Amino acid sequence: MKNAEMTRTITAQPLSAAAFAPFGEVLEVSGDPDKLINAGLCGRFHDRARLDFAQGRAGISIFDATPRSLPHRLDLLERHPDGSQAFLPMHQNPWLVIVATDPDATPLAFLVAPGQGVNLHRGTWHGVLTPLHAPGLFAVIDRIGDGANLEERRIEPPWIVTEPT
Amino acid sequence: MKNAEMTRTITAQPLSAAAFAPFGEVLEVSGDPDKLINAGLCGRFHDRARLDFAQGRAGISIFDATPRSLPHRLDLLERHPDGSQAFLPMHQNPWLVIVATDPDATPLAFLVAPGQGVNLHRGTWHGVLTPLHAPGLFAVIDRIGDGANLEERRIEPPWIVTEPT
Repeated sequence: MKNAEMTRTITAQPLSAAAFAPFGEVLEVSGDPDKLINAGLCGRFHDRARLDFAQGRAGISIFDATPRSLPHRLDLLERHPDGSQAFLPMHQNPWLVIVATDPDATPLAFLVAPGQGVNLHRGTWHGVLTPLHAPGLFAVIDRIGDGANLEERRIEPPWIVTEPT
Repeated sequence: MKNAEMTRTITAQPLSAAAFAPFGEVLEVSGDPDKLINAGLCGRFHDRARLDFAQGRAGISIFDATPRSLPHRLDLLERHPDGSQAFLPMHQNPWLVIVATDPDATPLAFLVAPGQGVNLHRGTWHGVLTPLHAPGLFAVIDRIGDGANLEERRIEPPWIVTEPT
């Protein structure tokens, strides 16, 4: 049985604000802008993320991640107890975000569409950043401060995330 | 002479961190990452923007701006006295950023390459957000708080910004 790894399967679903609400915000253009600026040439969708940092401050970092592909093997979840974390793609390719209410619960996998970012609420369990195409470039707004601000949990047996049907 | 508007011309130049330093930071992957995370699969370019907010806090908004084209007519500069403002493109198209040390000084126009964002230091004079292609989608990290936080100056005669040679 050595080569017959036990796995479990979940299917990725399109990301929507309603489905993602327990975990964070979807950062996207939706509905009318909160304000029109620049003589009407720019819509401002204002203050869309719940930023939440303990003993630290907001900062902007750039992440450059190796693209993965579906089906994707999820064997690790992590969370940041001291701060929210927002991911804004610097590209127009779909990518994958995986979240869970608890490391022992069945995770949810979302296929993020072009034009969408996410903000994970402080302490939300999630998979590592998972672009599906090159370049895997993201602007990340998270906590800058002392301390590890990281908990990791191996997931056994792993989950296999498959394409939306 | 009514139809013969007087104008002045500047040429856009490729954006570089050194040329932009007096106005803010270029947010991009450059050099080695500050940290490798996610088992080596992601490079973190850490805390690259000088966020600076008076009587307010950082927030994330999404801007959806109408694309312009070159040559571009600049007849307005603005600045935000109470906070820095970062623009992260959610696409891989070039766009234009215009900055000036003073409304009466000759402005500098930069062509921003795919994979680059900028953070404008608090109080920096700049042109309005100027995408050159659709979609004109940007994540904006700026000050959330009370007050107008806006100064505008009409530029007369206007500047015409031309393509890099």
